[in-house]
Amino acid sequence: MEDRAQIQEHIKTQGELVRRLKAEKASKEQIDEEVAKLLQLKAQLGEDGKHQFVLKTPKGTRDYNPKQMAIREKVFNTIISCFKRHGAETIDTPVFELKETLTGKYGEDSKLIYDLKDQGGELLSLRYDLTVPFARYLAMNKITNIKRYHIAKVYRRDNPAMTRGRYREFYQCDFDIAGQYDAMIPDAECLKIVHEILSELQLGEFCIKVNDRRILDGMFAVCGVPDEKFRTICSTVDKLDKMSWEDVKKEMVNEKGLSEEAADQIGEYVSMQGGMDLAERLLQDQKMCQSKQACAGLSDIKLLFSYLQLFQVTDKVVFDLSLARGLDYYTGIIYEAVLTQAGVPPPGQRLPERGQLRGKCGCG
Amino acid sequence: MEDRAQIQEHIKTQGELVRRLKAEKASKEQIDEEVAKLLQLKAQLGEDGKHQFVLKTPKGTRDYNPKQMAIREKVFNTIISCFKRHGAETIDTPVFELKETLTGKYGEDSKLIYDLKDQGGELLSLRYDLTVPFARYLAMNKITNIKRYHIAKVYRRDNPAMTRGRYREFYQCDFDIAGQYDAMIPDAECLKIVHEILSELQLGEFCIKVNDRRILDGMFAVCGVPDEKFRTICSTVDKLDKMSWEDVKKEMVNEKGLSEEAADQIGEYVSMQGGMDLAERLLQDQKMCQSKQACAGLSDIKLLFSYLQLFQVTDKVVFDLSLARGLDYYTGIIYEAVLTQAGVPPPGQRLPERGQLRGKCGCG
Repeated sequence: MEDRAQIQEHIKTQGELVRRLKAEKASKEQIDEEVAKLLQLKAQLGEDGKHQFVLKTPKGTRDYNPKQMAIREKVFNTIISCFKRHGAETIDTPVFELKETLTGKYGEDSKLIYDLKDQGGELLSLRYDLTVPFARYLAMNKITNIKRYHIAKVYRRDNPAMTRGRYREFYQCDFDIAGQYDAMIPDAECLKIVHEILSELQLGEFCIKVNDRRILDGMFAVCGVPDEKFRTICSTVDKLDKMSWEDVKKEMVNEKGLSEEAADQIGEYVSMQGGMDLAERLLQDQKMCQSKQACAGLSDIKLLFSYLQLFQVTDKVVFDLSLARGLDYYTGIIYEAVLTQAGVPPPGQRLPERGQLRGKCGCG
Repeated sequence: MEDRAQIQEHIKTQGELVRRLKAEKASKEQIDEEVAKLLQLKAQLGEDGKHQFVLKTPKGTRDYNPKQMAIREKVFNTIISCFKRHGAETIDTPVFELKETLTGKYGEDSKLIYDLKDQGGELLSLRYDLTVPFARYLAMNKITNIKRYHIAKVYRRDNPAMTRGRYREFYQCDFDIAGQYDAMIPDAECLKIVHEILSELQLGEFCIKVNDRRILDGMFAVCGVPDEKFRTICSTVDKLDKMSWEDVKKEMVNEKGLSEEAADQIGEYVSMQGGMDLAERLLQDQKMCQSKQACAGLSDIKLLFSYLQLFQVTDKVVFDLSLARGLDYYTGIIYEAVLTQAGVPPPGQRLPERGQLRGKCGCG
């Protein structure tokens, strides 16, 4: 490439020379001579100089112009004020980590990690999220108690559909509470924060779906899913926001070899949505209550809703048994916010699509 | 790694079990049995369990804790307010670029670019600075006129001496003016901005060295440096902030094959420092004025100082013929700010070392 750049520089200079000679009405011989030199240089570039320098950003990434940056700044300021109001500090970690720090943390998604070339040193990968670096930070510094936020870019070697707003480089705005607390207190605060931020940003109507991994696991157990199929069936359930129940069932039965009966039982549960009342009903459910895990999860959902009532955010929170989320490190309460009806976007602002806004929580 | 993590989890649980049995004064047989299981698990880890999971950030990178982040936020706010006061907007570009966008832009330093593994797609590299991505952004969007700042991390696959504050991941705060302007007007504004920011940050006494690539090239020519040695001699001169003139001369003569006479002549020039007066004196210099390039550079330095007088920043700006800067894309005025006497650092804040603060400018 250095040669190409030098040749291009020469072509530029030679082109200027030719233009000047023409303007100065120099002799035809002299002009022809210099034009010949110019053509020779262009030939050196190969392919008649058609192999142009590619001007683009890498696949799945984008630039942000000043207008877009002004919107981002406003949105981030809203989010950061909320995080600070809730007593959080911020930390920063490098954009890459030792490969082994990230390996084995994301289950099937590990294939989406970007590796750096081994350049005679350590094996490095771009961070996939801000959660694992945060865990590494806590362990390294022996910190057991912290409320922190971290807003930064993360990387996914996905095959992104840019038209659907999926990028390989995008921001995550994380808020985490580490430490020992009474059950559901930090979770309720996180939900309150999501509620505050989405209300302030005025993106349109939204709802926050809540579930618990233990309820999912218990449900799978009582529906007759073999232990070794929990994860794969879970990731199929997670597709319910994009696929119909019929297609999800087909995948479970035809691709993952689940019995039709088990799938139908799962189908009944995952169609359930509600609030504290649903948690109470399921605690009485003959089948569900056979699972200790599920009962523990349901009790926590009940407790969570009692705090959410105090925080006055139950209008937007729905206990939804179809919410599964993909990552392995979620072990307790999980949640996700979705826009139910997008508002009118301010000029120049592209709104996230339905289902694209995701809050997450991992208790482990 | 997934297996390792699982085994470690089992070891933890098993260890707790053994401790509990001991505390409960269980039977020796029972304890021995569980200890045996524990040892077996540890053996599975290999190397007697000594191959521990490494908890660290990659070489040349670091975390920032909440206190350090609070300082960073304050410093960035000072810098950003100054940039905005001078009418700049901000843009953002991806952390990686197509490899060919970066190739051939940094001369010898190109070896310091981090490449990503080819993962079946494009060849990608982490950005080395914010200047080349900015040029790519301008060309892609056919923008000819913009005043922008960009504060973001850049990457150098350097062999960093962390103790001297050299990192592989660090922030650059760029301010650029693109467009057609009367000579030296944007340059004077950039120097004014450096002056404002360093004054407001109260890091201690500082001075801003100024030179011009054309003066360097002209100087090399009239001192008898062969054309093809300009760049390499230039990079030796750039070491004058870290090495004595004697050592710099030795490198020129012994390693780079320059004549002793030429080196001595360069030595006389690069010891010169001053202001507008020095530029005027050199414009009368019999040898220097043989070079048209040098004269053009010197006239611009004179013009620059006339604007700096209006901006009242001449107290901190020094025309210094030893300032060379390494990158190929500098073609006109270059400058660099250095701390001459570091102030008392606020608690918890590590001050940059002398010479570590660098402002830069490329006119091309």
